[in-house]
Amino acid sequence: MKIITIGREFGSGGRELGKKLAAKLGYAYYDSEIVSEIAKKTSLSEEYVSRVLEKRPKPVYPVGYGTTFYMTFNPHFNLSNSIYTEQSNIISDMAKRMPCVIVGRCADYILKNEDILRVFVYSDTETKLERCKKYAPENENLSDKELLSKISSVDKERGKYYRFFTGQKWGEKENYDICINTSLIPIDKAVDFLAAIALGEQNR
Amino acid sequence: MKIITIGREFGSGGRELGKKLAAKLGYAYYDSEIVSEIAKKTSLSEEYVSRVLEKRPKPVYPVGYGTTFYMTFNPHFNLSNSIYTEQSNIISDMAKRMPCVIVGRCADYILKNEDILRVFVYSDTETKLERCKKYAPENENLSDKELLSKISSVDKERGKYYRFFTGQKWGEKENYDICINTSLIPIDKAVDFLAAIALGEQNR
Repeated sequence: MKIITIGREFGSGGRELGKKLAAKLGYAYYDSEIVSEIAKKTSLSEEYVSRVLEKRPKPVYPVGYGTTFYMTFNPHFNLSNSIYTEQSNIISDMAKRMPCVIVGRCADYILKNEDILRVFVYSDTETKLERCKKYAPENENLSDKELLSKISSVDKERGKYYRFFTGQKWGEKENYDICINTSLIPIDKAVDFLAAIALGEQNR
Repeated sequence: MKIITIGREFGSGGRELGKKLAAKLGYAYYDSEIVSEIAKKTSLSEEYVSRVLEKRPKPVYPVGYGTTFYMTFNPHFNLSNSIYTEQSNIISDMAKRMPCVIVGRCADYILKNEDILRVFVYSDTETKLERCKKYAPENENLSDKELLSKISSVDKERGKYYRFFTGQKWGEKENYDICINTSLIPIDKAVDFLAAIALGEQNR
């Protein structure tokens, strides 16, 4: 298949896997690029869009419960919702334009009717902590406790965002074709396997 | 690694995957053989042991809730519990004796302190139905509705059994190193990948 979506827990190596997979297959790679594109189209500042996309509207109502009132009267939601719609359109456009790997952004849900391979990447807390330390920005000096709190909070927001816009539970295996725990499975081996699947399916 | 455990939803092809993987690696393969071994050791009839193992004691109490009373006074539980203990010992013995693939029987939990690769195999309902029809015994003529009910009931029992003896949720990705949805991922490709992981890790 020509579209691969990657959901990922923070610090599990999902971005690395996505980039390597795109490089191996010669596919386009998207994650924050999507946000830039949205920003250009809507003339909102990239920073603001990025903040809204990460944070998602608050307070959270379960999908299908109270959303009518919320959607009508909460200007913050209306803005976020229009950004989500814009983002969905852009993802759909891009996926039609050329084969691609898309990390995050509910792409698995947005493209659910296309011929896609849906991957979820996760790992145990120790692995995430180790990875976050290894790849931390130079000016970021967080303690283990602060890092753990950051990991947990980023994943919580991703879960809420995904739930809010898809009505599905983030990271639940039924929504994916393969779930890979990078605490044991080496990323490079996973890349080889996923590339074989994508190419094999394409030749059907 | 020399031990691979496979949890699987009924009709998802977990047994096929396990057998092919064992053959490819030259590992021993176990599933119902374990039951036979238990039966020999405890002098209970194989059929009875099989029935108890599949059905697990009823009614079900959450682990850590009411189990003291239950364990003390319910003869059915005491028998099942002693069979589970016996089974755990046998699985541990076998895993020490030679490299193996073990399907089901809470092996991932029983061997959690060993160097193992924990696989879970699942698929969507349509795939399971198709598979069950393809491999149905000649004398089994179930309607789609009856098959679906069988699939759901077998998985429910497996989930209860696993929960009862491990305290963990059956099929939850955090308990596994890789979860494979056989609706899209071809079993033979998964076998190649898992063999590469097992052999790669062994050479570390």
